[in-house]
Amino acid sequence: MGKVFVTGAAGFIGSTLVDRLLKEGFEVIGYDNFSTGREFFLTEALKNPNFKLIKADILDLAALTSSMRGAEVVWHFSANADVRFGLNHPRKDIDQNVIATSNVLEAMRYNEVRDILFSSSGSVYGEATVFPTPEEAPFPIQTSLYGASKLACEGLISSYCQGYGFRGVVFRFVSMLGERYTHGHVYDFVSYLINNPDRLSVLGNGSQRKSYLYVGDCVEAMMKVRAKMPNVYEVYNLGADEYCTVVDSIGWITSLMGLNPKLEFSGGDRGWVGDNPFIFLDTQKIRALGWHQTLTIRQGVERTASWLLHNRWLF
Amino acid sequence: MGKVFVTGAAGFIGSTLVDRLLKEGFEVIGYDNFSTGREFFLTEALKNPNFKLIKADILDLAALTSSMRGAEVVWHFSANADVRFGLNHPRKDIDQNVIATSNVLEAMRYNEVRDILFSSSGSVYGEATVFPTPEEAPFPIQTSLYGASKLACEGLISSYCQGYGFRGVVFRFVSMLGERYTHGHVYDFVSYLINNPDRLSVLGNGSQRKSYLYVGDCVEAMMKVRAKMPNVYEVYNLGADEYCTVVDSIGWITSLMGLNPKLEFSGGDRGWVGDNPFIFLDTQKIRALGWHQTLTIRQGVERTASWLLHNRWLF
Repeated sequence: MGKVFVTGAAGFIGSTLVDRLLKEGFEVIGYDNFSTGREFFLTEALKNPNFKLIKADILDLAALTSSMRGAEVVWHFSANADVRFGLNHPRKDIDQNVIATSNVLEAMRYNEVRDILFSSSGSVYGEATVFPTPEEAPFPIQTSLYGASKLACEGLISSYCQGYGFRGVVFRFVSMLGERYTHGHVYDFVSYLINNPDRLSVLGNGSQRKSYLYVGDCVEAMMKVRAKMPNVYEVYNLGADEYCTVVDSIGWITSLMGLNPKLEFSGGDRGWVGDNPFIFLDTQKIRALGWHQTLTIRQGVERTASWLLHNRWLF
Repeated sequence: MGKVFVTGAAGFIGSTLVDRLLKEGFEVIGYDNFSTGREFFLTEALKNPNFKLIKADILDLAALTSSMRGAEVVWHFSANADVRFGLNHPRKDIDQNVIATSNVLEAMRYNEVRDILFSSSGSVYGEATVFPTPEEAPFPIQTSLYGASKLACEGLISSYCQGYGFRGVVFRFVSMLGERYTHGHVYDFVSYLINNPDRLSVLGNGSQRKSYLYVGDCVEAMMKVRAKMPNVYEVYNLGADEYCTVVDSIGWITSLMGLNPKLEFSGGDRGWVGDNPFIFLDTQKIRALGWHQTLTIRQGVERTASWLLHNRWLF
């Protein structure tokens, strides 16, 4: 089995992927700077002799390049995943997403690694005009620095595929849910309700419609794609066949926690500047590979909330 | 009249724009590092007391920020415009296009300049599937680092418009022709034929179809757009209502020069990796503002070739 290089290996999705790759018998090199990743997520992986963890920064091109030696494929999953606060530090998305991806591609070129799979985001569609939104939606207008930076990464990868003979896959994710989830609305709500069971502040009017996917379903979909790499470059949406509102999700969380808090809405049709009030991706292309979602959004939200309640040390 | 800041002011399109802005009575600050710009193009501008030239690099954020003080609008026209050799230096497009644009936006934020007009490129459509290609064409796949970097710039500008209250216009150009043109196929062919009148090497099979616009028509179109800035963000294609083949263009050039060289084709349907064999943009949106093209592509090619023949010192 070939050697697999995973950036962001200690993150939510990265660490779940690492476990899955190890289960398949691959040798895995995990690369993470632990700025948001957590070694705890790699507890099982670290017991496996096929796993090697490198603590280094992706902006350290020399470290990245030497760490990648001997790899057959790169899963590039490190990112600044903070969509909401992008406007507070406008260079962060450029550095941690665009320059980071450029570094990964250059390290691959140096090491003659040709295959890359990349975690992009449905936010590259900006505020889509077609729902569910297909991969070949109309030319998007970027509404967040995060989305703009992810689209820049996609363009770099696709250019390397065309120009240097790489094979690339870009996954456009909806928000993911599940074990090791440490970022997003379920995290924020559970965290808040643990200390304030009687009330909950909600950004926007609560009617923002979002689609979420269980991380296990996400990883299964990606393994299917990896099994038949494209000749040059392909894009796959990864999302659920349904969506919910923020209020739906709050209902599932509070019911699981046995709470009935008063909801206080900040108002407006979006949570923050650049928030997308409706995300719902067309997943026909990935489903055509035989993949299907096994958990509903409700089950994903409940499983995530349960996991958070059993891991309160995270907060 | 407000003060206007132009990056790439000594370039082909930038210097033509500077002359036009000065003619309108604007105060103009021109910023250029003269890596490809030429002071000769600013001969007239430099005689005008309303023009101030700053020789500095756009990657010098401090110089850029202090130079921009007092401006009301930024025309960001500096770029690495070398589409063909992008693969020889894959960081150049990121530095000179993406980081440069990020610097311009940050300098604007610091100086509270809100209006930006940007020279993007039809190459962001990659290999388009719809002709003529409209602004809302299907989600493009990038085929060159240049196109990918220009799309990244567009995303940054649009995010700043949404997030920081900027007003932005992105122009997606076809290749421009006209006086001060120093880069592209007419330049290459004229330059070669002056020394080798009997033969001409042509990249590809010569049947690549391209659309070109005369730079004077380009600048008129942009002045019309500037006169009614959008509230947030708009994209305009700028191109001709026609296209020609490389062989057409060679015919016009050689006939103007009174030559009949033997053509030697390198073969294949494109000139180089990432070359787009067909570029033809839909210009309904800009034409709806009352703009129209005054020179045909043939007239543009001939005028360019004539100008080059009268400015042989350029070669």
